[in-house]
Amino acid sequence: MRDVAIVGAGMTRFGELWDASLRDLFVEAALAGLGSAGADRVDSIYVGNMAAGQFVGQEHLGPLMADHLGMHGVPAVRIESACASGGAALRMGFLDIASGQSDLVLVAGVEKMTDGADVTNVLATASDQETEVYHGITFPGLYAMIARLRMERGTTTEEDLHWIAVKNHRHGAMNPKAQFRREISVDDVARSTMVAEPLRMLHCSPVSDGAAAVLLAPLDQARRYTDRPVRIAGSGMATSTIALADRPDPADLDVVRLSAERAYAMAGMSPERVQLAEVHDCFTVAEVCCLEALHLANGSEASQAARTGYSALGGRVPVNTSGGLKSKGHPVGATGVAQVIELFDQLRGEAGERQVPDAHVGLAQNMGGSGASSVVHILERV
Amino acid sequence: MRDVAIVGAGMTRFGELWDASLRDLFVEAALAGLGSAGADRVDSIYVGNMAAGQFVGQEHLGPLMADHLGMHGVPAVRIESACASGGAALRMGFLDIASGQSDLVLVAGVEKMTDGADVTNVLATASDQETEVYHGITFPGLYAMIARLRMERGTTTEEDLHWIAVKNHRHGAMNPKAQFRREISVDDVARSTMVAEPLRMLHCSPVSDGAAAVLLAPLDQARRYTDRPVRIAGSGMATSTIALADRPDPADLDVVRLSAERAYAMAGMSPERVQLAEVHDCFTVAEVCCLEALHLANGSEASQAARTGYSALGGRVPVNTSGGLKSKGHPVGATGVAQVIELFDQLRGEAGERQVPDAHVGLAQNMGGSGASSVVHILERV
Repeated sequence: MRDVAIVGAGMTRFGELWDASLRDLFVEAALAGLGSAGADRVDSIYVGNMAAGQFVGQEHLGPLMADHLGMHGVPAVRIESACASGGAALRMGFLDIASGQSDLVLVAGVEKMTDGADVTNVLATASDQETEVYHGITFPGLYAMIARLRMERGTTTEEDLHWIAVKNHRHGAMNPKAQFRREISVDDVARSTMVAEPLRMLHCSPVSDGAAAVLLAPLDQARRYTDRPVRIAGSGMATSTIALADRPDPADLDVVRLSAERAYAMAGMSPERVQLAEVHDCFTVAEVCCLEALHLANGSEASQAARTGYSALGGRVPVNTSGGLKSKGHPVGATGVAQVIELFDQLRGEAGERQVPDAHVGLAQNMGGSGASSVVHILERV
Repeated sequence: MRDVAIVGAGMTRFGELWDASLRDLFVEAALAGLGSAGADRVDSIYVGNMAAGQFVGQEHLGPLMADHLGMHGVPAVRIESACASGGAALRMGFLDIASGQSDLVLVAGVEKMTDGADVTNVLATASDQETEVYHGITFPGLYAMIARLRMERGTTTEEDLHWIAVKNHRHGAMNPKAQFRREISVDDVARSTMVAEPLRMLHCSPVSDGAAAVLLAPLDQARRYTDRPVRIAGSGMATSTIALADRPDPADLDVVRLSAERAYAMAGMSPERVQLAEVHDCFTVAEVCCLEALHLANGSEASQAARTGYSALGGRVPVNTSGGLKSKGHPVGATGVAQVIELFDQLRGEAGERQVPDAHVGLAQNMGGSGASSVVHILERV
């Protein structure tokens, strides 16, 4: 396998972007990514998208986006793994370059969620239609059960979760691309509307529009495009049961552990090497489960990581310096690519006031469903 | 890149399979494919599917199918390129093996279309939502315009098209997996209900349920699984404008030509080497356009190929010996994989009464939309 590098990146602002369509968002992010690398044509395009068919009545995003990007003829395909679609698309682009088939690949995630669809029910189609959706449960309820289980075991408290939202908003307030650029307090979280007990509105990532794009090239060709390429040192993907109730321990995201162990093995790195991480905080409790499963913190450390500062900027492993899904926003198909863009910026020393000093190794973890699929990428400055 | 072989295959019958769900269909095909190769676990799974979110309210098919197949933990992702989803999924599996990442990959396409969804409108989400669907056109109308254009130019007649349906039903009558195992006459076609002038019901592929699966391995490991592996000699993908009206010549499927030329180049073969082909006859006129664009017949030869026997069993290049989409059925996400299974059977000499004598090289062409995406694979007996 050839070594693969990220050589360019671009993204839209995340938010309720009512003046931009699905294709507008994609093209804006893709052109920014291409421009950053001085490239105008690629060998292949991977589009990460969860549910444009349901959200805006449009499948077949591969040719649509190649066409609207002015790249007539270029192979282009959509990759879907629910909210992990962006990470999964990155993995496909990685394999395409690694195989020797392509020398320059565009990977872009996009989602347009605010055009009037019944968002919570569309998202629920990422859970088990026959055993979960049919009985009326949606994702806030599924993650609430994970949170409740952890609280009943005494491993995580409500206040631990409040602090995760506070920390991620503090980070996101410094991110010009974030949907919510404002700090919130523990009190704000504790008093916000209950959604699915114990999860309140400020424990939940928002409904967002947005797109994010990266350009991949073989590492030995990367300096044609940038003097600061970032190597993809490891890529790991895993699946678990799609239905939460089918797992031996629903509070343990085994899929995250497995995907991470595969990525660490490919990178030849231990978790101690990771200096910062973007993890899938679709609900605050997910960030706790992920830190544990990624071996970035042990049980009580993980639960209290935001409160103690362990996972805040300046702490042992800053987590979600971008603001995470919670503050930056969560256009589901774009999220996995946007996570990697935060690492790309950090590892190149371009993260502005959010910069983690002397960052060499970062990890991105992107999740689908209630932990049915997970993709982990480990990035390294070269 | 490592050489890649198909080492096993399995599929369900195609048809209105009301007693089987989406996951049932997938698992039946996948287990048949695994069984044929004596395998029980793979390194990676690619699911070709166009629109299960819209058809049956289920996205996130990667983990769902890995889970229901009993392959906990295995990386699994859905690949979508409208009706070319199966071919695109095969290409991803090919790249995964070629890269060295995986040593055994399951590629399976599946679609469940008869569960009550508004099928024609769901399929229309593969065309351009903003410039085509919004104005009310669906695929029968788009392909009817292609047919009308060819008829007005005098390159293709209505009767040429009738013969394609007749030929494909003759082939399909010999295929135990086909949805319509009966011969039809030119008169039957000419008298069938008009759908979108000049296309009548018997010019159109049906609405179908079904799944098809193949197993891929590196060629140098293939004999662990079978003594008759079939090599993927070439894989080519291309896109064109998603909207038919945006193409310089809507009657010319440039996307097919480009994808074929890429596959021929990778295989190091000229079209003369191709002894049989499965092409995307979603409407009869598509088979004419494809034969031309694949360089398997020139203009008038292509139009008259079914009538003259050129493309029938026993002719110069038997086309759609499986019955094609027209007679075998067209569960859209499964089609691209099922095409390749027909070639796999033919190249191994296992096609029964449909056998093309001494077949060494076959080509499969799978199309998305009205020619917005196309995937071509060239298979070779080894």
